[in-house]
Amino acid sequence: MAAETTAAGPDAATDGAPVAAAIPPERLLLGPGPSPVHQDVLDAQARAMIGHLDPWFLKVADEMADMLRTVFRTQNQLTYAVSGTGSAGMETAVVNTVEPGDTVIVGINGVFGGRIADTARRAGADVVALEEPWGRVVPAERVASAVKAHPEAKFVALVHAETSTGAHQPLQEVGELLADTDTLFLVDTVTGLAGVPLEVDAWHCDVVYSGTQKCLSVPPGLSPITFSPKAEAVLDRRSSTVRSWYLDVSAVRRYWGAERAYHHTAPISSIVGLHEGLRKVLAEGLDARWARHAEVGRLFQEHIQDRDATLLAQQGHRLPQLTSFGWPQGVDEGALRKRLLEEYGIEVGGGLGDFKGTAWRVGLMGEGATHDNVDRLLHAIDELLEG
Amino acid sequence: MAAETTAAGPDAATDGAPVAAAIPPERLLLGPGPSPVHQDVLDAQARAMIGHLDPWFLKVADEMADMLRTVFRTQNQLTYAVSGTGSAGMETAVVNTVEPGDTVIVGINGVFGGRIADTARRAGADVVALEEPWGRVVPAERVASAVKAHPEAKFVALVHAETSTGAHQPLQEVGELLADTDTLFLVDTVTGLAGVPLEVDAWHCDVVYSGTQKCLSVPPGLSPITFSPKAEAVLDRRSSTVRSWYLDVSAVRRYWGAERAYHHTAPISSIVGLHEGLRKVLAEGLDARWARHAEVGRLFQEHIQDRDATLLAQQGHRLPQLTSFGWPQGVDEGALRKRLLEEYGIEVGGGLGDFKGTAWRVGLMGEGATHDNVDRLLHAIDELLEG
Repeated sequence: MAAETTAAGPDAATDGAPVAAAIPPERLLLGPGPSPVHQDVLDAQARAMIGHLDPWFLKVADEMADMLRTVFRTQNQLTYAVSGTGSAGMETAVVNTVEPGDTVIVGINGVFGGRIADTARRAGADVVALEEPWGRVVPAERVASAVKAHPEAKFVALVHAETSTGAHQPLQEVGELLADTDTLFLVDTVTGLAGVPLEVDAWHCDVVYSGTQKCLSVPPGLSPITFSPKAEAVLDRRSSTVRSWYLDVSAVRRYWGAERAYHHTAPISSIVGLHEGLRKVLAEGLDARWARHAEVGRLFQEHIQDRDATLLAQQGHRLPQLTSFGWPQGVDEGALRKRLLEEYGIEVGGGLGDFKGTAWRVGLMGEGATHDNVDRLLHAIDELLEG
Repeated sequence: MAAETTAAGPDAATDGAPVAAAIPPERLLLGPGPSPVHQDVLDAQARAMIGHLDPWFLKVADEMADMLRTVFRTQNQLTYAVSGTGSAGMETAVVNTVEPGDTVIVGINGVFGGRIADTARRAGADVVALEEPWGRVVPAERVASAVKAHPEAKFVALVHAETSTGAHQPLQEVGELLADTDTLFLVDTVTGLAGVPLEVDAWHCDVVYSGTQKCLSVPPGLSPITFSPKAEAVLDRRSSTVRSWYLDVSAVRRYWGAERAYHHTAPISSIVGLHEGLRKVLAEGLDARWARHAEVGRLFQEHIQDRDATLLAQQGHRLPQLTSFGWPQGVDEGALRKRLLEEYGIEVGGGLGDFKGTAWRVGLMGEGATHDNVDRLLHAIDELLEG
């Protein structure tokens, strides 16, 4: 090649002290994500690199997609893992369904509904926002009225498990309402999947995405997603090109389908890790896993209320795997949370948006949903409150 | 919550035989990516999960970004890893700079220039395509004429290392040409970074992205990216919202900057893996690493021509780390490639686009760029051609 001038090289190796290897401290992850990951999953991720078109890897990817179908409770052919975190799954769901000028109906009762609305607007949609106070769920009647007023709506979007508030959105009634219409049902279950019941097919959910780092207990980096035949038909009928190249399902599905056409290099080791994580989920069984989350979450919610904390999600609609609660006035939540991390090695999350500075978010998700972890957390909280 | 109906659960565990753990076969990765990954990097990725807002992790992320600056040869403040593979970095570069109606100039001499043009069109740009035959580079004079004809162009994009052809694009002259204009210089160095010289600052490159699974020898899943102050000023002057929520730099940089605002959950274990991979790059030193790639690649290119193969990139502009070559008529490249994988455990790539069905792509990248690997590959090829 033509000679190009390179600078005399100040490498980190010669420029300053080399950077030390990153050895993490011990942490018990009881925040809103990531959740604790089983060593088998970490080991699976570390089990050597392999090509993304290698026949062995394609078989593993197919097995992974099959297990996703089982966990989603769906027969949907178009089921795969988006090469990005949960928010990339959200964007995939939105930008592939929306065309400029479309109307969409979005329930907003926390951060993540707002995010769907924001993304839909960027894709050119007119958003009908069904706003509810943070912590409450969106009533099916509100959705029914909105659909009646906007029968042309491309989709109704609801957040199954609102990670910012701990609200547990019912889905079935809305799914049944939309089943006989042209409107799709888009569901964010980033924090829901494998933690609380979800029946993608039986509840008529059309585009459903999740994350790996919540109740699946797999490191962040992938977003499981599934599209119903009704949703696929909408994708096939698009008249405009999807605004994203990276997330364009019409191209990505040629890799995940029989054709195996190269689109982008899949995050290979992450997919092998997800394969192992799903094996663990299915070995436990979904019913058992839902029951474990329900029991452990209820236990924590009972006991934290004994500490004068106020649960922020509305009664009857509380996620067991993610509890958002406000401390009584006078408690410095930030200082308490910092000491919990530094002195006990336990991570919990602070409040977002309306709840910033006054609330905590405690996740008892996946591997983290154990009686022992509830005991450790409550014991640490009691010592800190006394101290 | 309101009772919802769940189906009687056919889990994989009860439905059919449980899926076996994924234990990969031994592979020597000499294709266009992923490249072989050092065990230390795999181990770093597997070193337990930690929170994406944990002070320990934020320090590791900062160190990682500092090492990226060293490898990019830049002082650019806005330097981080996009939460997706190289194509997500490409899309980040394009959608954050382009506004609807903008003109952009894109060199297209293979798959990856075409991809930039496609993405720019989706973002609303008018694309001035500088097409060159596959295997050739884009002459600086062509760029100069195009810029003269389109002084309003938002950017000129060139692919530093065209993974589909093995062409090595000179950058410095174009960088100098654009330095005193309002036009940005956008560079795709997915396969270039740490394999051939790149001087982001000295060559006036403004938006530069790469991938991890090529000459950095880290698993796929992240895309290192850097923006010059000139590029940052363009982002700050935007009058329209970026079309992608997930890749919107104005929000993402609040996480990578001092504010540490939550945007999306970073792919934590991938970032810890990249941290370890960059440590290895800098321990070797960039000059030494470039020299190693140059020597090993030249050796392979000499010897493969002795087997009647035709190098597809133009003389004088051949990447050492990625060699695309055509087999003589009568050689069934697909059958040969399959036997190489099955009988020798060596992965190489097939041709893309114009070269599909007649060419191979051999990557000697990162950990893979060794004399021993060249010997193993040539030995296997000789046995297969004789057999």
